Amino acid sequence: MLITLGTPSRPLQTAACLLGLLTLTLSLPCEAIGVSLSNKLVSVDVDDTGGSLTVTDRVSGRVWEPDPWMGSAGSLIYKKGGQSGWWNLSSASDIAVTKTTEDRLTIRFHNQDGRGDMPEWTVTTSVALDADSATLRLRVLEVKLPQGYWGSTLEYPQRPFALKTDVDRGAGVVPYWQGVTIPSYIFPMNGGRFCMWDDAVHSPNAIGELRYYDWDGLTMPWFGTHDERSAAMAIIPYDGSVRLRWIANYNNASVIAKNHFRRSEFARIVSLVPVWDLSKITPETTVQYQILPGGNHVTMAKHYREIAKKNGLWVSLEEKAKANADVEKLKGALYIGIYGGYPHYINLPGMAFTFDRLDTIVQDMHDNLGLEHAFVHAWGTFENYAPVMWPISEELGGQEKLKQVVDRVKGYGWLYSSYHSFVSLLEHDPNFNIELAPTDDEGRPLLRHRWKAVDEDRWAELAEACLPKEMAVLGQNADVTDIAFTGKVGEGGRRLADYLSSTGLVLGTERGNEWAVPQYHMFEGLVAPYRIHGKALAEYSHGAPLFNLVYHDAVTNFGKIQDPNHLVNAHTGDYYIKSLRAMLQGNGPMLFIAPYEYEGVRSYIRFAAKTLGPLHRQTAFEELVDHAYLSPDFLVQTSSFGDGTRVTVNMGPTPFEQDDKVMPPYGFRVVHRDGRVIAGRFQHQAVVNGEEIQF
Amino acid sequence: MLITLGTPSRPLQTAACLLGLLTLTLSLPCEAIGVSLSNKLVSVDVDDTGGSLTVTDRVSGRVWEPDPWMGSAGSLIYKKGGQSGWWNLSSASDIAVTKTTEDRLTIRFHNQDGRGDMPEWTVTTSVALDADSATLRLRVLEVKLPQGYWGSTLEYPQRPFALKTDVDRGAGVVPYWQGVTIPSYIFPMNGGRFCMWDDAVHSPNAIGELRYYDWDGLTMPWFGTHDERSAAMAIIPYDGSVRLRWIANYNNASVIAKNHFRRSEFARIVSLVPVWDLSKITPETTVQYQILPGGNHVTMAKHYREIAKKNGLWVSLEEKAKANADVEKLKGALYIGIYGGYPHYINLPGMAFTFDRLDTIVQDMHDNLGLEHAFVHAWGTFENYAPVMWPISEELGGQEKLKQVVDRVKGYGWLYSSYHSFVSLLEHDPNFNIELAPTDDEGRPLLRHRWKAVDEDRWAELAEACLPKEMAVLGQNADVTDIAFTGKVGEGGRRLADYLSSTGLVLGTERGNEWAVPQYHMFEGLVAPYRIHGKALAEYSHGAPLFNLVYHDAVTNFGKIQDPNHLVNAHTGDYYIKSLRAMLQGNGPMLFIAPYEYEGVRSYIRFAAKTLGPLHRQTAFEELVDHAYLSPDFLVQTSSFGDGTRVTVNMGPTPFEQDDKVMPPYGFRVVHRDGRVIAGRFQHQAVVNGEEIQF
Repeated sequence: MLITLGTPSRPLQTAACLLGLLTLTLSLPCEAIGVSLSNKLVSVDVDDTGGSLTVTDRVSGRVWEPDPWMGSAGSLIYKKGGQSGWWNLSSASDIAVTKTTEDRLTIRFHNQDGRGDMPEWTVTTSVALDADSATLRLRVLEVKLPQGYWGSTLEYPQRPFALKTDVDRGAGVVPYWQGVTIPSYIFPMNGGRFCMWDDAVHSPNAIGELRYYDWDGLTMPWFGTHDERSAAMAIIPYDGSVRLRWIANYNNASVIAKNHFRRSEFARIVSLVPVWDLSKITPETTVQYQILPGGNHVTMAKHYREIAKKNGLWVSLEEKAKANADVEKLKGALYIGIYGGYPHYINLPGMAFTFDRLDTIVQDMHDNLGLEHAFVHAWGTFENYAPVMWPISEELGGQEKLKQVVDRVKGYGWLYSSYHSFVSLLEHDPNFNIELAPTDDEGRPLLRHRWKAVDEDRWAELAEACLPKEMAVLGQNADVTDIAFTGKVGEGGRRLADYLSSTGLVLGTERGNEWAVPQYHMFEGLVAPYRIHGKALAEYSHGAPLFNLVYHDAVTNFGKIQDPNHLVNAHTGDYYIKSLRAMLQGNGPMLFIAPYEYEGVRSYIRFAAKTLGPLHRQTAFEELVDHAYLSPDFLVQTSSFGDGTRVTVNMGPTPFEQDDKVMPPYGFRVVHRDGRVIAGRFQHQAVVNGEEIQF
Repeated sequence: MLITLGTPSRPLQTAACLLGLLTLTLSLPCEAIGVSLSNKLVSVDVDDTGGSLTVTDRVSGRVWEPDPWMGSAGSLIYKKGGQSGWWNLSSASDIAVTKTTEDRLTIRFHNQDGRGDMPEWTVTTSVALDADSATLRLRVLEVKLPQGYWGSTLEYPQRPFALKTDVDRGAGVVPYWQGVTIPSYIFPMNGGRFCMWDDAVHSPNAIGELRYYDWDGLTMPWFGTHDERSAAMAIIPYDGSVRLRWIANYNNASVIAKNHFRRSEFARIVSLVPVWDLSKITPETTVQYQILPGGNHVTMAKHYREIAKKNGLWVSLEEKAKANADVEKLKGALYIGIYGGYPHYINLPGMAFTFDRLDTIVQDMHDNLGLEHAFVHAWGTFENYAPVMWPISEELGGQEKLKQVVDRVKGYGWLYSSYHSFVSLLEHDPNFNIELAPTDDEGRPLLRHRWKAVDEDRWAELAEACLPKEMAVLGQNADVTDIAFTGKVGEGGRRLADYLSSTGLVLGTERGNEWAVPQYHMFEGLVAPYRIHGKALAEYSHGAPLFNLVYHDAVTNFGKIQDPNHLVNAHTGDYYIKSLRAMLQGNGPMLFIAPYEYEGVRSYIRFAAKTLGPLHRQTAFEELVDHAYLSPDFLVQTSSFGDGTRVTVNMGPTPFEQDDKVMPPYGFRVVHRDGRVIAGRFQHQAVVNGEEIQF
């Protein structure tokens, strides 16, 4: 019986049809035409006893062996009743490798009922190698399980392109938020950091999964590993049907100790495993592997950049600025969020501003702090809670007063948006409208997490009910609509984005997502992962500007408003580190303050106006061309932009010497194409009874 | 049938015996002598329809009502087969409140089979009020479930002494690590921090549990809530039989939305609920409540301090210094960890030191950086992996060379310990000895988490096999034995502590635990919680020096070595914040570096020598007398010590004005009893092309 390529639907019928053909082919006596595919760049050898793949990068000579733990081709994870289990594809009783054409082979893993304590099951995959490029295409053609079993996922290939910890010098590369790399070897680091790092990779948390598109998932549909000779990069589908499992320098020790009362005999490895969700894939679902001789995280990102361009996801800021001249105002802007309260609350005690106060802040930034470019994002300007963003608060000063502020902002050549959400239901809202929630089959309201609790079908309608009124009154030139676009959206989300795009405003949104790049001008927070929330990945990886290497010249990127530059965070650092990272990666400066804090952050605004802003103004619309780690502890990094600007930063307290130049602790060095140099450093200082002590 | 006060054992027999008596009493017609207990300080009224408690603080007049959600007296959580469920005690068909003596009553909750869709079950509790003090004692005398049911926990009283969010101005007080308080109202905070905070308390993570003694649990067996009029504090047993459940400004919204398709009608509350583990309690197990009119977190800690003294847990540093003069050397010491590698690794690439290098560092700190007091803790001095801490590495320079370093350290009047663990098994150890692991009933090795993988019965033996040899060769004057004492220990752990104590060395250990206070001189890291690891509590609470309010003059406390002062962490802050917090709470300065970082942290050492150390020297052996939050955003705090020293700090970027004095951003002010003032601030500075810009 055939099961599990999905609920009966078109894809499944396709599968069934295709499988009929395959079964015919495979029922012939096994006349292997051969078990290799090869072109001048790559060869793929299939082990005909286990069906696993060995991939050779013929340019560098690097041989990528199959699964270093068990030599397994893949694992089929099934459920039966309430239990789940897995079968090793390579333990199938019959494995047939068939070269169907010159550039394509199929591998059929078939287990006869009762062999190896398993029932009858079949998995058939195909591997194709492009004629003239180092591109492999993997598909899963058939998954058959016996009655009563349900196929959950297929891990295929199993633990491919693995790096042996402390043997291979390389890294796993994962577009998690802005991006991270997981080194495959021990390197010098702070004593305290080392303890945390090493513990994290000696625990079950060294394994985890990410899906493309989720709020806390992959921001681009690819990942890869590389050493000093070769890189192998997987490109997965945009539909989320194939997930990533990472193994970060782990050997499964705790599972083995618990179940087998012995030590793990597996090597510690870094490997990135494609996990095929059998309820979502079709026989056309493809995982594409690209072999990149001498490649690293930059090579991978640049390879994907070309794919993104072909798919229409990459649209340049230059082009966007031609359609809307206000987009130019993002260059060098300080993105400043002023949190007067709403949401989460209206007239929040101790935090709400008046529009007069807002006006004073805006003037002070311009007149006294030298701020030439800014994007002002004011939170808390309405009388109602989300998703009803209207009317403008009379208590705070009324719409005429707020218009004065907006006029002033525009007069300075800056951008303005009030905070908007059209997708939230807040429980403390006195006008909480449960009618806006989606309902289940029985018509009962489904109250999901408050920020995204409105039925997606209503999002655009709610925006259209409020935003035109606000535009008519204020004449703002930008829009930040929060929350809606942080994860995958359906038709309703697309309609909201289309509507917002139709307003002609400069568009920004929280976090941001790849699909929004063509319509959006700024993302607030596609930065280093700032939350761990179960994702230990941030603990044992280094930040890498993967998203910017693809999209820096397509969408501007500013810090995450929940993790502004003047707060500290375990994974993203303090003000120095965040500022240095923004300079390196080409992000704009940002602050997010409650009004009562304004006095305390004036000096940060002055510094942004003087130093961070002008650098961003230079590079905002340029491609991020390159990025590299320079110091053994990964804290000194360098990058370069399309206009020739090169930025080098030291994100640690240890001086670093290279080419007779010393990069001081928390230092930076910007070299422009014309030879102009801006060199400096951040430092700690204490003033004790009048005496200055520098760190 | 009687079940569930434990597996058949002495406590259960006691219970059965006692229950016989009670059943007799309660089978009499209900002649309630009354349903109240009262003395001049407190009255307790029991609702005889629901059996819930109302407690009145008669001094302040504050009436603490029962459970604000359901008026429930308590909840009995049971298991049946693989399922679990709960019964509301107040929904029992028969509730009998009986005053057994003037100062004691029992409450019997009995449900008749079939009533309220429940089978027959009984729970009997007792409440006693001390004659002359505001002390209530609660016990659970009887828990009876029908055959096939298994009693798991009893939440009793249910949601007591609750604060209504944004109505009551108070806090929950929890000795989690050094201690935290959870305000019951919205207060001004940074815009970004507010988003994170408010989200965290509108999610299921606003509820969680802690147990006394666990690595990540309660560090002292008490907790409480207070508002501006009254405090109620629970003291729970030392054996971990009663846990804490916290509710942090939550109303169970998500559970209700999911199960009932509607909004929560419960008020958001802060409440701390005792959770009785029915497999561990006996009828003598007592939860003691103390009512403290006008009390707060300081009052609670000071009340517990007296209990700790009575229990012999509090032994003064002064007394300890009389027994061992070296203990005085902790006063004002910089605790510096130098991480050459072991553990986790021997001769760690890029990080190992030689003993010559260590000697140079020690001399430089003394001669050039003005360091007068220090505790040097060197990691990576042996040739073997833990738990075999011997011989001293020849490759790094040999034992004579290391002795020179130790002699130098002692000559300066400092303390020295190499890093020790006698409890770990590291998988990369070429001499990994699986024989040291504990075994299960079938004799199979149980390989637990690597740091505590050695059978506890072997700990002392392993220490005794190594430490005397090292002492004979080096003559060190201190010992840091890591890991062993971070959680609850059994006899084996006690034997190790006793052995270490018998060496006459100054004793320090990782994190530390209350039971170790009498034997130990310094704890490395009973500080602000630095890990979240599933404990969202750190996200929506403020640090409070609860442990120090009890034990500051009994054991010195330094920073956590995994979270040293020069690294940043979301929950503990950056260098400024950690230094200010250490000044405020009376902790010593600390750094933890890899040798290659030494150059980069010399300025921090100089600052510790000049400013942080001398303050600690003054207050190290003094009681921490008081602590208060001054600013509305909780970032300005003050404390005072037994010698009259008062410390005020501002842990945020906003200037704070009080009594005509302005506390600058990241500022501090130390006033000694003699009027001497040390005032200062930390600040950021950037130097750009030679120009200094201050923040």
